[in-house]
Amino acid sequence: MTKIDALPSWNDGAAKAAIVAFVQATTDPASPQFVPEKHRIATFDQDGTLWVEHPMFTQLAFALDRLLQLAPQHPEWKSTEPFKSALTADMGTIAKLTMNDLLTVVAATHAGMTTDDFEHTVGTWMAQARHSRWNRPYTDLIYQPMLEVMRYLEANGFKNYLVTGGGQAFVRAYAEAVYGTPPEQVIGSSLESQFDYDTDGAAILMRSPKVLLFNDNAGKPQDIYLFLGRQPLAAFGNSTGDKEMLEYAQSGGGARLMTLVLHDDEEREYAYGPGSAHADTKFGAFTQALADTAKAKGWVVVSMKSDWNRLFPFETP
Amino acid sequence: MTKIDALPSWNDGAAKAAIVAFVQATTDPASPQFVPEKHRIATFDQDGTLWVEHPMFTQLAFALDRLLQLAPQHPEWKSTEPFKSALTADMGTIAKLTMNDLLTVVAATHAGMTTDDFEHTVGTWMAQARHSRWNRPYTDLIYQPMLEVMRYLEANGFKNYLVTGGGQAFVRAYAEAVYGTPPEQVIGSSLESQFDYDTDGAAILMRSPKVLLFNDNAGKPQDIYLFLGRQPLAAFGNSTGDKEMLEYAQSGGGARLMTLVLHDDEEREYAYGPGSAHADTKFGAFTQALADTAKAKGWVVVSMKSDWNRLFPFETP
Repeated sequence: MTKIDALPSWNDGAAKAAIVAFVQATTDPASPQFVPEKHRIATFDQDGTLWVEHPMFTQLAFALDRLLQLAPQHPEWKSTEPFKSALTADMGTIAKLTMNDLLTVVAATHAGMTTDDFEHTVGTWMAQARHSRWNRPYTDLIYQPMLEVMRYLEANGFKNYLVTGGGQAFVRAYAEAVYGTPPEQVIGSSLESQFDYDTDGAAILMRSPKVLLFNDNAGKPQDIYLFLGRQPLAAFGNSTGDKEMLEYAQSGGGARLMTLVLHDDEEREYAYGPGSAHADTKFGAFTQALADTAKAKGWVVVSMKSDWNRLFPFETP
Repeated sequence: MTKIDALPSWNDGAAKAAIVAFVQATTDPASPQFVPEKHRIATFDQDGTLWVEHPMFTQLAFALDRLLQLAPQHPEWKSTEPFKSALTADMGTIAKLTMNDLLTVVAATHAGMTTDDFEHTVGTWMAQARHSRWNRPYTDLIYQPMLEVMRYLEANGFKNYLVTGGGQAFVRAYAEAVYGTPPEQVIGSSLESQFDYDTDGAAILMRSPKVLLFNDNAGKPQDIYLFLGRQPLAAFGNSTGDKEMLEYAQSGGGARLMTLVLHDDEEREYAYGPGSAHADTKFGAFTQALADTAKAKGWVVVSMKSDWNRLFPFETP
């Protein structure tokens, strides 16, 4: 037990107490629930758990910008769905796109280049794009309390993995600078890549438009197993897409920490949990059923409004 | 530079000198080819590179044993190919099976159980199975000189990954005990898993018979990118299935180490390189074309006969 508060952006309460109790139970050698360091694994969803996901996923904003950029080379998009709808830049129209439509847009904007070129493209976009509400880079809009949890876990021998429904290569392009998470600790939805040679005969990987991993819902535990071969001890999410990941963490026995971030702060961010005005939002849904599951299984629900005294790193503590 | 020889099982020669020079060039802060620790990644093929792969891959021996074990529940196998052939336990017949036949055998013997049950099954088999020539557990038949390279790289800040054409879950079941490589550092061919619940409602993963990753040839760099998001600095293999992995390592620029183990020691192990009696072996082929590529690209070819003074850990040094 340390005297320094590792979680200063967290108000005292059940959520903070549960996180601290979990870390002490798993890292104190005298604890019956002690876990050796190499088994201390924590997994974090990204959108809505580590950074703002409204009014749309950052990666969707990237895809729509790329679409506009590539449109002059694709005059056929003006009359072909889902491109026609996606190019309207109208949220009402875009919200009507199905998951298959979105995958078609992703395939058209995220493939057909080398893996290196894609990383560079994301980096360039991220440096100039701004969130409409805060007029700041998207990478500024990460949750300070969650960064503190990541640092706290690392200081206690945990290895943190991002486990995102978003594109693995997209997130890897900034994860180390933004979260301190190296590329090999980012698990996400993935396109296939194709080994090839450049004109000098050097090996390259081309991004193919074919989806290899869809890392949401059941895909999360399946991919965690694929990448790590074992369950996480702690899992953090915020939506129905994270339910199976939390169940997988919980199935391991011993001290486990399953946490859901509830967006209930319309003033400082957005409110789209059960009962709120935007409860029926298409993406990142914290449904009443999820709230019931969390209660039945003893998961920790974090109220952004009452558990967090500071939201973003750029805010003065 | 250290005075202790980290590679005592290696005879002095070009191969040993190349490995030591690579490590010094990438880890000496004064070197123009210095690489920060977090980028020091080395990848190792397993079969034929870290342990004996003749007269057949260990995992094939496991699959055939499983097939015999499961046969009473599958009377139809007696008259259905490829099961009929596989059940003969005759190497000549088995050698005629195609890759698709083998995948059918793998699907029948490696799926339809939980991931935990499979790990247990492999562990049980590995504890009792014996290699026909040495009458020892397969896990005894690992190459002491390669273990020394792994430890030497780790001592110099490298992270070692197994990148095997064999089954990821199979290799993970013993990799930590045998090579000191934790499950998250094993990349291999993979079946899909299916998220489900057991009768108590706890999350489980069932092994599906569908191949997700075939981690050989171009699959190796593709999967390295999938898992790590970057190229290895050093890559070790022994066959045509490793060519693309070595090319991928080499494409990164700076100091790189590409190494192929040549099996040319019929007396102590087997000789199946170009020009040898078993050169046309189906698995783990070190073809003349591969030898030409290695020469043209400046790769290090390790002669088991002349570069290694000791083969196995159980031999007295």
